[in-house]
Amino acid sequence: MLNKNIQTFIACDSEYEDSHIVLFGAGFDGTTSFRPGTRFAPSAIRNESFGIETYSPYQDKDMLDYDYFDSGDLELPFGSTSRSVSDIAIRSDMILSDRKIPFMIGGEHLVTLGSVMAVKDKFDDLYIIHFDAHADLRDDYLGQKLSHACVLRRCHEIVGDGHIFQFGIRSGDREEFRFADEHTEMNKFTFSNLESTVAKLRGKSVYFTLDLDVLDPSVFPGTGTPEAGGVSFDELRKAVTMVCSQLDIVGCDVNELSPVYDQSGVSTAVACKIIREMLLAMS
Amino acid sequence: MLNKNIQTFIACDSEYEDSHIVLFGAGFDGTTSFRPGTRFAPSAIRNESFGIETYSPYQDKDMLDYDYFDSGDLELPFGSTSRSVSDIAIRSDMILSDRKIPFMIGGEHLVTLGSVMAVKDKFDDLYIIHFDAHADLRDDYLGQKLSHACVLRRCHEIVGDGHIFQFGIRSGDREEFRFADEHTEMNKFTFSNLESTVAKLRGKSVYFTLDLDVLDPSVFPGTGTPEAGGVSFDELRKAVTMVCSQLDIVGCDVNELSPVYDQSGVSTAVACKIIREMLLAMS
Amino acid sequence: MLNKNIQTFIACDSEYEDSHIVLFGAGFDGTTSFRPGTRFAPSAIRNESFGIETYSPYQDKDMLDYDYFDSGDLELPFGSTSRSVSDIAIRSDMILSDRKIPFMIGGEHLVTLGSVMAVKDKFDDLYIIHFDAHADLRDDYLGQKLSHACVLRRCHEIVGDGHIFQFGIRSGDREEFRFADEHTEMNKFTFSNLESTVAKLRGKSVYFTLDLDVLDPSVFPGTGTPEAGGVSFDELRKAVTMVCSQLDIVGCDVNELSPVYDQSGVSTAVACKIIREMLLAMS
Amino acid sequence: MLNKNIQTFIACDSEYEDSHIVLFGAGFDGTTSFRPGTRFAPSAIRNESFGIETYSPYQDKDMLDYDYFDSGDLELPFGSTSRSVSDIAIRSDMILSDRKIPFMIGGEHLVTLGSVMAVKDKFDDLYIIHFDAHADLRDDYLGQKLSHACVLRRCHEIVGDGHIFQFGIRSGDREEFRFADEHTEMNKFTFSNLESTVAKLRGKSVYFTLDLDVLDPSVFPGTGTPEAGGVSFDELRKAVTMVCSQLDIVGCDVNELSPVYDQSGVSTAVACKIIREMLLAMS
Amino acid sequence: MLNKNIQTFIACDSEYEDSHIVLFGAGFDGTTSFRPGTRFAPSAIRNESFGIETYSPYQDKDMLDYDYFDSGDLELPFGSTSRSVSDIAIRSDMILSDRKIPFMIGGEHLVTLGSVMAVKDKFDDLYIIHFDAHADLRDDYLGQKLSHACVLRRCHEIVGDGHIFQFGIRSGDREEFRFADEHTEMNKFTFSNLESTVAKLRGKSVYFTLDLDVLDPSVFPGTGTPEAGGVSFDELRKAVTMVCSQLDIVGCDVNELSPVYDQSGVSTAVACKIIREMLLAMS
Amino acid sequence: MLNKNIQTFIACDSEYEDSHIVLFGAGFDGTTSFRPGTRFAPSAIRNESFGIETYSPYQDKDMLDYDYFDSGDLELPFGSTSRSVSDIAIRSDMILSDRKIPFMIGGEHLVTLGSVMAVKDKFDDLYIIHFDAHADLRDDYLGQKLSHACVLRRCHEIVGDGHIFQFGIRSGDREEFRFADEHTEMNKFTFSNLESTVAKLRGKSVYFTLDLDVLDPSVFPGTGTPEAGGVSFDELRKAVTMVCSQLDIVGCDVNELSPVYDQSGVSTAVACKIIREMLLAMS
Repeated sequence: MLNKNIQTFIACDSEYEDSHIVLFGAGFDGTTSFRPGTRFAPSAIRNESFGIETYSPYQDKDMLDYDYFDSGDLELPFGSTSRSVSDIAIRSDMILSDRKIPFMIGGEHLVTLGSVMAVKDKFDDLYIIHFDAHADLRDDYLGQKLSHACVLRRCHEIVGDGHIFQFGIRSGDREEFRFADEHTEMNKFTFSNLESTVAKLRGKSVYFTLDLDVLDPSVFPGTGTPEAGGVSFDELRKAVTMVCSQLDIVGCDVNELSPVYDQSGVSTAVACKIIREMLLAMS
Repeated sequence: MLNKNIQTFIACDSEYEDSHIVLFGAGFDGTTSFRPGTRFAPSAIRNESFGIETYSPYQDKDMLDYDYFDSGDLELPFGSTSRSVSDIAIRSDMILSDRKIPFMIGGEHLVTLGSVMAVKDKFDDLYIIHFDAHADLRDDYLGQKLSHACVLRRCHEIVGDGHIFQFGIRSGDREEFRFADEHTEMNKFTFSNLESTVAKLRGKSVYFTLDLDVLDPSVFPGTGTPEAGGVSFDELRKAVTMVCSQLDIVGCDVNELSPVYDQSGVSTAVACKIIREMLLAMS
Repeated sequence: MLNKNIQTFIACDSEYEDSHIVLFGAGFDGTTSFRPGTRFAPSAIRNESFGIETYSPYQDKDMLDYDYFDSGDLELPFGSTSRSVSDIAIRSDMILSDRKIPFMIGGEHLVTLGSVMAVKDKFDDLYIIHFDAHADLRDDYLGQKLSHACVLRRCHEIVGDGHIFQFGIRSGDREEFRFADEHTEMNKFTFSNLESTVAKLRGKSVYFTLDLDVLDPSVFPGTGTPEAGGVSFDELRKAVTMVCSQLDIVGCDVNELSPVYDQSGVSTAVACKIIREMLLAMS
Repeated sequence: MLNKNIQTFIACDSEYEDSHIVLFGAGFDGTTSFRPGTRFAPSAIRNESFGIETYSPYQDKDMLDYDYFDSGDLELPFGSTSRSVSDIAIRSDMILSDRKIPFMIGGEHLVTLGSVMAVKDKFDDLYIIHFDAHADLRDDYLGQKLSHACVLRRCHEIVGDGHIFQFGIRSGDREEFRFADEHTEMNKFTFSNLESTVAKLRGKSVYFTLDLDVLDPSVFPGTGTPEAGGVSFDELRKAVTMVCSQLDIVGCDVNELSPVYDQSGVSTAVACKIIREMLLAMS
Repeated sequence: MLNKNIQTFIACDSEYEDSHIVLFGAGFDGTTSFRPGTRFAPSAIRNESFGIETYSPYQDKDMLDYDYFDSGDLELPFGSTSRSVSDIAIRSDMILSDRKIPFMIGGEHLVTLGSVMAVKDKFDDLYIIHFDAHADLRDDYLGQKLSHACVLRRCHEIVGDGHIFQFGIRSGDREEFRFADEHTEMNKFTFSNLESTVAKLRGKSVYFTLDLDVLDPSVFPGTGTPEAGGVSFDELRKAVTMVCSQLDIVGCDVNELSPVYDQSGVSTAVACKIIREMLLAMS
Repeated sequence: MLNKNIQTFIACDSEYEDSHIVLFGAGFDGTTSFRPGTRFAPSAIRNESFGIETYSPYQDKDMLDYDYFDSGDLELPFGSTSRSVSDIAIRSDMILSDRKIPFMIGGEHLVTLGSVMAVKDKFDDLYIIHFDAHADLRDDYLGQKLSHACVLRRCHEIVGDGHIFQFGIRSGDREEFRFADEHTEMNKFTFSNLESTVAKLRGKSVYFTLDLDVLDPSVFPGTGTPEAGGVSFDELRKAVTMVCSQLDIVGCDVNELSPVYDQSGVSTAVACKIIREMLLAMS
C-alpha cells in the first residue's frame, strides 16, 4: 500500500518520541515594512534541503546518525500580528513541555518573540545570543510595538539587561545603538568577542536567534533588507558551530530568508547548510 | 534654481485646487495570505506610466486637456491592519470633503474598505460595482474579519443587500457563492448584464472597485492569486469606460497589481493604461 | 503529539483505501532535448495548489466531497531512461491492481509510456486521447527510441491503428503528419471533432494524456517548447471536463509543466486548476 | 578535420549564390527611450530557432525544400545613430545588388529606415506595409529626428503620401493620428482592410516592416513598450502569410523583440515562428 | 491640503538654498556596447534608498543632521550622445555657479565627461580620482570618440598628464595599459597607494568618479560588464570615506549600476549605502 | 559576397591547422539529479565571451598573439548517457590524433569521462588534477554508474590509485571521503598543497578538470548544486594559471556552469575569464 507524501527537512524524518530536536516553520512576514517574502522560507528550505548532503566534512558528523523531527508549518493568520506571535508561543511550549528543543524556521524576525516567550517560561535565567545585520532595538516602528524592527527590544523587556549578546550588527538608527550601549552587549560588524561570550555563558540556558542577513549579501542575497559588509559563510559556519556545540541551547530559530529575491537558489542552499551545521553541532 | 524631484502618474501634475480627481497610493498587503507584493504597485505604476501616451485613440481624448492631481502614497503601518484601513479612510475623507473624487491605487483588495467607509459617510445611498476574479465574500479568513478575502462582505455590511454588483467572479468557496445568491448581484465569469446594470444605476452614487485579477492571467500575470479564465484587455477596457463615463462615480480604486511577479512589466503597463482610460472616461 | 509534515495536492489527503483516484509524481525530464525543467513540476504543483479553491464554480462541485490520495513522487534515476519508464509502469500497476485510477503528474511526455504500458496490461482494448501541441510521433530522435518526441509512436506500437485520438497538434516534422494520416486520428490546431470522438468512445476504456503545451503560451508560458497558436484556458477546461466526465478514464496524466520558465507562477496555477477540474469531472 | 562553429537561423545555411532571401541582424537600440534590449534579438532568435520545426503545418511547406542564407549581424557603433542607419543601408544594398531580398532582424524600429533607403534606391514606386502597435509618425522625439518614434515619418518623407499602409496601430500622440489621417492609410487596432490593401498592391514593389509589438503582450511580452489590446498570434500569422505570399516583397524586417524582458522565452519563440512563416510564404 | 508626490534620495529633501551638495540623475546609456540598463539606476536608487538607514554606524554620523538636495533626473535625448553630454555639463554648471557640489548619479560612465567639463571650467588645476574595473582609456571605440570606453581618455585631454589617479583597474586592451603607463597614475586591481595619493592631493580640487563595477561582482552583480576579481564592499567603503572626508571634492559621480541585471536588489542597496557614506564623509 | 554567420569563443577563430588548442562544447546534463541546465553553457559562454577583453593584465598576455580554434558543439542524444559519453571520447580522440589539445566546455561533470578515456588512450601514465566542491567519488548514484556524482570514481578506475589530485572539495557523503583517504590525494576546502602537487607532477602528462562550483557561490551562483564556502575568484585564477602554465596539460575541461540560474550573467562572465586565463597560460 502506498503512503501519503511526507516532506521534511532532509534526514528529519525520525519519530517524534525519538527526537531531541523538533523543527517547525513559522512563515510569518506580516510586519515586514520593506520587501516581504519570508513566508516562503520554510517550504523552500525543505525542498532545497535535498540538494545538500547529510554528512558534514567540517564536523565529520552525519545527520543519519541522529534523530530529528520536522513537525511542519504553523498556519498563521496574516493580518493579525498578535495572534501569530501567540500561535508560535503555543507550538514552542508544546515542544518544550516534552523536554525537546524547538528549532523554528522563520519567517521575519518577529517570530522570535513567540518562541522566546515560551522558552523564558521554562528557563528563568535565560540568555539570548543574536546574530544579525540589524539591531532590531526600536521601541516602536511607525507606532507598532510588534514589529520585526523591535523584536530584540521586546525580548529585552522579557530577559532584562545584560542577557542579550548581539553580533554582526551594522545597521540601525542612532537611538538603537545608544540603547545597546546601555542595555545589551553589542558587537558591531563582526564576531569578535564571541569566544569570550561563549566562555561566559557556558552552563547557562541560551536561546539562539540567527537572522541570516548577518551574512554578506554576496553569499545571501535572498533577504528583505540586504546590508552590504556582512560576515562570510565560513565565519558564520564557525560561529554557529561554536555556539551550538559549546552552549546549552534550549531553543533557537533561523529567520529572514526570502527566497523569492534570489532566483539562483544560493541563499536557500546556504540556509540549509547552516541549519545542518546547527543540528549536527547540537547533537 | 532647481526644483525638488516630483514624481506623479503621467499628466497628473496639475494643482490640487484645479483637479476634480485626486489619486493616492495605498500599498497595503498585510493580510495577503498567498503571495504578497501589492505594496510595490503604486510606485511601479507611477514609474511605468511614462511608457504610455496621454492620448487615448479609443476615446479620442487626451489627459493633457484635463486636470488631475497625484497626492502620493500613504505610509501605512504594516502589522496593524485596522490602523491601515482607517488611515485610508482619513485620506479619502479629506479628498471627498473638498468635493473631489478619491482615486486609490492599491495595495491588496482590503484597501477598498477604508475608502468605502469614507464614501458612504458622504453618499448615503451608495452602490458598489465590483470587478474581480474572486468573490471576496467570506465572513472571516483564518479567524480574521479584516482580510482581503472578506472585503466585499465587510462592504456589504455597510451598503446592504442589493447594493453590490459583481462581475467576472470565477473563484471562491461554496459559501461565498451561496451568500452572493442571496445578497449581491453576481455575474459569474463575464461582463454580461453590465449594460443593464449601468442603465439601472444611472444617476445613483457609485463606488467602483476594480481588482485587476479579473483580467486573464495571460495579459495580467503580475498578481498574487492568478485565476485563469478571465476577461480580455479589450473587454475590461470597454467595461471600465462604460462604467466611468455613464455613471456618477464618487470614488474608485484599482488594486491587486503585484509587479514583482511579472518581470516583463506587462502587468504594470496594463494597469497604467486602464487607469488612463478610467481617468479620461470620468473627465 | 505533533505530526510529521505531510504535503499533498490540495484536498488529496484522504486514506488510500477510500480513494478511487491516486495521484503520483513522475518528474522525469531526461530525454528533453531543448529546455529541461519538468522535473520540478510535481512539487511546484503541490505547493501552488493551495492558491486555488477546492470548489469549482464551473462544475458546481467541491473536492471536499470526494476522496483523493496523493502518493508522492517516484525517485527516478536520471541518466537511465528505460529504468525510469519501468519504475513508472510499476507504480501505475500497483494502483491499477487495487482497482484505482492512476493520475500521474509529469515530467516530460515520455512518462506517459510507462503508464500506458501498465494500463494496457489490464485493459486490452485501450484507447488514448491525446491533447498536445506536438505530434510526438517520430520513430526516433537523434537515434533514441525512448524520447519525449517519440512517445505517441511508442504508444501506437502498443495500442495499434485507430486507437489514438490527437487534438490541438500544431507542430512536428513532415513525416509525423504523414504517419498520423495513416495511423491515428489527428485533429490539428483545435478540439473540433472532440464531441464526436467522445460519443464514439463512450463505454470504452480510455487513457487520457494531457500535454499542457496544447495551451497557448500566453496562458501557459512555463514549458520547454512553447508553441504559439494554442487553445485557450476555457477551451481546454471544457474539453477536459467533457473527456473526464463522459468517458471511462482508466488512467491519465498531465505533463510538460516546467515551472522554472514562468517566474510569475501563472503556468503552475493553470496546471493546478486543470487538475482540479479533471479530478472533479472524474468523480 | 573539424569545422568552425557556424550558427544560423534554422535551415538558413545554404550557399549565398543559391539563396533568394538573405537574413541579417541589425541589433541597434540606441534611440530606445523607454526600455532598451532589442540589441539581443538577432542572437536570441538564432539560438531559439532550433526549438521550432522547419515544417509548417499551416502552409504545409518545409524550409528544407528552399535555400536561405543567414549573413550574420552588423557590428553597429552604439552612440552614433546616423552611422548605424547607413551601415544598415549598405548591407541591404549589397544584398539587393545581387538581386536577392534583404530580410533584416532588428533591433529597434529605426533600423527600418536604413533598409527602406536602400530599397527605394532600386525600386522607385515603393509601397510600405507596416504592422505595429505604435504609429511611429512623430516629426521628432526630444529633438531627435532619427528616433524609433519617428521612423515611419522618415519613411514617409522617402516614399510619399499614399504609399504607407499601417495596421494594428493603437498608441501614439494626438498629432500622429492627425498626420495619419492626411498622409498614410492607417487601420487602427486590427487587420481589417488588409485583404483589400493586398488586392490593391498586387504587382507593386512592397517593403514589409513588422514591429512585433503589434501582437498582444499576452503572447509577446518581450518588448520595450508593451501595449495591451493587440492582435493574436493566429491573426498575425494569417496576415503575414497573406502579405508575403501574395505580394512582391522586395525587402522586409522583423523588429522590436527584446528577449531580456521575457524570461520564459515565449516571445523569442513567437518571433522565430513568424519568421519561418514569412520565409515559407515568400518562397 | 494635500501635496504633490515628491520623491528624493532618502534624507535629501532640504531646501536648495540650505544644501551644500546637490544630487541629480543622468540615466544615459546610449553608448553602452554590451548590456544597457544604467538608465534605470537613478530612479531605482531613489526607490531603494528607503531601505537603508540615515545613520551610519561606520562614521557615527546621521544624514538628518545635514542638508542635501535632490534635483531629479535630466531628460536626455537617447540617440544624441553629444547633446546628452552637454545637457549634463549645463546642469553641473548651474549647481557649481551656486557654489554647491554637483553629485551626479549615472548612467553609463560617459556621463562623467559632461560633469568634468563643467567642473574644469571653475577649477583650473583639477585632479581626478577614478575607481573602476576598466581603464576607459581607448582613443575611440568602433570609431566613436564619445563612448563609455573612452571617457577617461577624453578627461585626460581636459586635465592633462599626471592629473588622473586610477584604482582597481583590472580590464582593458593592451593599448590602454600602455597609455596609462605614460599618462595616468594607474593602480591595478586594488587601492594600494590610495593613502599616499590622498596625502599628495590634499588641498587640491578633486573630481571623484566612482564606477561601481570596481566592486567584485559577487557584491555588485547589477552592472553591464561584470569583472570578477574586484574589491570588497568594506574596501570600497573605506576608500570612498577616505577620499570624500580628506580631500576637497568639487564634484563627483557614481555610475554604472544597471539594476535590471540584479533581481535581488542587492546591487542597488550597495549603491545607496555607498552614496550615503560619501554624502556623510563630504559633510 | 557575404559570409555565413560564424560564432566562436572570442579570439578563437584561427584556422584548425594553426591552432594548438581546440575548443568544443559538450552540453550534456542528462544525469543531473538536482537542477539541470548545463546544456546551455557552451553557447552562453560563446555569446558572453565578447564582453571580456582578449588581453589579460594578470599575465600581460593577449589572445590575439596566439591561435585557437573553436570547433563548435557536439549534438548529443539526451536520454542515452553512454552514447553521449562515447561521442565525447570520439571528438577528443580526433583532436588528440592531430597532436592538439582538446579543451572541452561542459555540460555536467560526467562529460569529463569521455575525454579522459580518449586522453588515457594516448598518454599511458596520466594524472588528473581535479578542482571541485564535490568529491564525485560515489560508486553509483541511484543505481547508475554513469552519473556526474560518480565521474571521478570512474576516472579512478581508468588512471588508478595515486593519479588523482583533488582540491577544494567540501561536499560528499561519508563514503566518498573514506574512499579518497585510500585512493586519491584529496585537499579539502582549499588549494593548500597545490604548489607541491604541481612540483611533483612537473613533466608528467596531466588532464585538468575544473568544476566551476569549486568557486564560492557568491561569485558563481549559476550552477546546479551551489555549495557555500568555496574559493574566491582570485584564488581560482592563480591556481589555474599555475596548473596550466607549469604543467604539461594534454587535455582539459571546464564544466557545471548552468547559466539559467544566474540571471545577472556574472557566472558566465567568470567562466569566460577563467577560460581566457587557462588558454593564455597554456600558450
